[in-house]
Amino acid sequence: MPDFSIAVDLGGTNLRIAAISTEGQLLEKVTLATKLALGPHDVIDQMCDAILRLSAKYGQSGKLLGAGLGIPGIIDMQTGTVRKSANLPGWEDYPVRAEIERRLGLSKNALPKNAASIPLENDANMAALGEQWLGAARGVENMAMITLGTGIGGAIVLGGKIWHGMNGMAGEFGHVTVEPEGHPCGCGSRGCAERYASASSVIRMAREAIASGNAPTLAQAASSEAEFGAQSIYNLAIQGDEPAQRIFHTFGRYLGIMLAGAVNVLNLDMYVIGGGVSSAWDAFAPTMFQELRQRSIVYAATAPNDPFASDLLGKKERASRQVESRTERKTVIARALLGSDAGLYGAARATVMPD
Amino acid sequence: MPDFSIAVDLGGTNLRIAAISTEGQLLEKVTLATKLALGPHDVIDQMCDAILRLSAKYGQSGKLLGAGLGIPGIIDMQTGTVRKSANLPGWEDYPVRAEIERRLGLSKNALPKNAASIPLENDANMAALGEQWLGAARGVENMAMITLGTGIGGAIVLGGKIWHGMNGMAGEFGHVTVEPEGHPCGCGSRGCAERYASASSVIRMAREAIASGNAPTLAQAASSEAEFGAQSIYNLAIQGDEPAQRIFHTFGRYLGIMLAGAVNVLNLDMYVIGGGVSSAWDAFAPTMFQELRQRSIVYAATAPNDPFASDLLGKKERASRQVESRTERKTVIARALLGSDAGLYGAARATVMPD
Repeated sequence: MPDFSIAVDLGGTNLRIAAISTEGQLLEKVTLATKLALGPHDVIDQMCDAILRLSAKYGQSGKLLGAGLGIPGIIDMQTGTVRKSANLPGWEDYPVRAEIERRLGLSKNALPKNAASIPLENDANMAALGEQWLGAARGVENMAMITLGTGIGGAIVLGGKIWHGMNGMAGEFGHVTVEPEGHPCGCGSRGCAERYASASSVIRMAREAIASGNAPTLAQAASSEAEFGAQSIYNLAIQGDEPAQRIFHTFGRYLGIMLAGAVNVLNLDMYVIGGGVSSAWDAFAPTMFQELRQRSIVYAATAPNDPFASDLLGKKERASRQVESRTERKTVIARALLGSDAGLYGAARATVMPD
Repeated sequence: MPDFSIAVDLGGTNLRIAAISTEGQLLEKVTLATKLALGPHDVIDQMCDAILRLSAKYGQSGKLLGAGLGIPGIIDMQTGTVRKSANLPGWEDYPVRAEIERRLGLSKNALPKNAASIPLENDANMAALGEQWLGAARGVENMAMITLGTGIGGAIVLGGKIWHGMNGMAGEFGHVTVEPEGHPCGCGSRGCAERYASASSVIRMAREAIASGNAPTLAQAASSEAEFGAQSIYNLAIQGDEPAQRIFHTFGRYLGIMLAGAVNVLNLDMYVIGGGVSSAWDAFAPTMFQELRQRSIVYAATAPNDPFASDLLGKKERASRQVESRTERKTVIARALLGSDAGLYGAARATVMPD
């Protein structure tokens, strides 16, 4: 049996703990409901029980290399605490890393003394490391990850390492203004990207369309489906319902505006789009690429002949781009490949990365 | 006499060549008109004459360490050519570095054989290196530079080095969308930051205000001043002319929106605002800071008690920020200090920086 790491993805809904081999094989994954109501103490107990069980089981024949932990919110890596998390109310300033180390340190099956301190990262950062290790950005040293979920998460990887910025707050793509007088955001601003390109914004736009009286199919779905959400609206969009399609066009447009800014400023090799709502790719990607090409001089100069682009380009422009492609490296906008496990793979990877 | 470097700032209007000591003393500066009509060949001749004269003069008593060159536009550092430059028409694909090396290589007074290859950088990148060496960002390892001129230039410095991105195109802050349905831009997009926060946009907004018939003072200045421009409009703004003030409020608003996005994504220690129009700071900075505080969760969490902020904050918030300030590093938005010489200092600095 191989050497392995323990990976933890602590979300507001689920707590997942996995053993992952150094070759990137998922040996075992435990999914638990996150019992937020019990408070951080009990959640950490639950987490550590699973860590100890997995490390005992796979430690019989392989070496445990470390345990990494992804948490939604703003993480203070120095102190190992959660500074701010919308999804984990009550966790602010709770000493997550110290509590885990304390519990694991008490056990015979704990991490080896020479293991690195438990890497603690924002969940989008862990997802970026995962996609970079085994997913869409495999081997890409400079990339960004945008996760489209309830909100928008983001991460920047430079030279193979997370770019944390001065306070560990880099990569807040979701709060880039894309419409100055747009919808108010919980962050105190207006017109943030995540007000247009997230699951919650898809639902908001659907409710608005229903209220306008011009979206009968959406209205019917909303009243008949117990779990009416972004997925239902996407299903209607791909079945040809125009109001539902318009929602994803708006989604793609604003995601494209945000990405165009990121591409202009960062000029990275790859931007990976992940998170649950990235499964609606077919519905939002065409308008996203349209905005990217129009709004990013860097993307326009370095765009590959992506399928959407080649439909829209004339022969002459296609020919000129083929000339360019011999001399230039291309900006790639790619769908994430690892789905909801990206963060687990990233957390495992983080345990064996040099500082 | 000290060891020194030769710095060149090649602009569309002026060609400046300087000898700068390793301690950052400007020993001599030559300013010539850039004779664009004669073509790159003659301009490079003129430049190299000055380089040779300065290197001969200061080389009698100090060692010449290298020559660095800042050029507006997109530079291909590998090949040493200008890929695209709005300010240097006809220079596309001209082998700038090779031509300079050829001329200097023919002379006895040329660069020492062991000198590094001539560093060639975008002018905003050189200005960033200058401000980081001797200006507002002295000793700041992670910073961005925004130059407000006819357009907007930008540069990102990470770990003390220019972040070029994949194709040398990083830092295009001027073409970040700040108003999706805004003014058309020469880049093919609409609502780019430089359509609102540059000298040319100040003049456009003034013309629009004059055309509306509600800006009599601006109208009078435009018809009576031979050199009516951003400076005249700024002068009226600080004298209390409301239409002129509104122009700089719009300027500050959109610059703030762009900066807020940059701060959210990059989380750098410092953002330096330079370029000719940065001298209108008093007129645009208040609305810029207002947008920054509203639109950047990262800035709001890490803002220092800047003079504008403290006017607007209540006592309670001031107190809470003072608590924060003991534990957190602050995001600083600063005016550039080196004026139009920043690029020269940066070009000199680039000759002695390790790759």
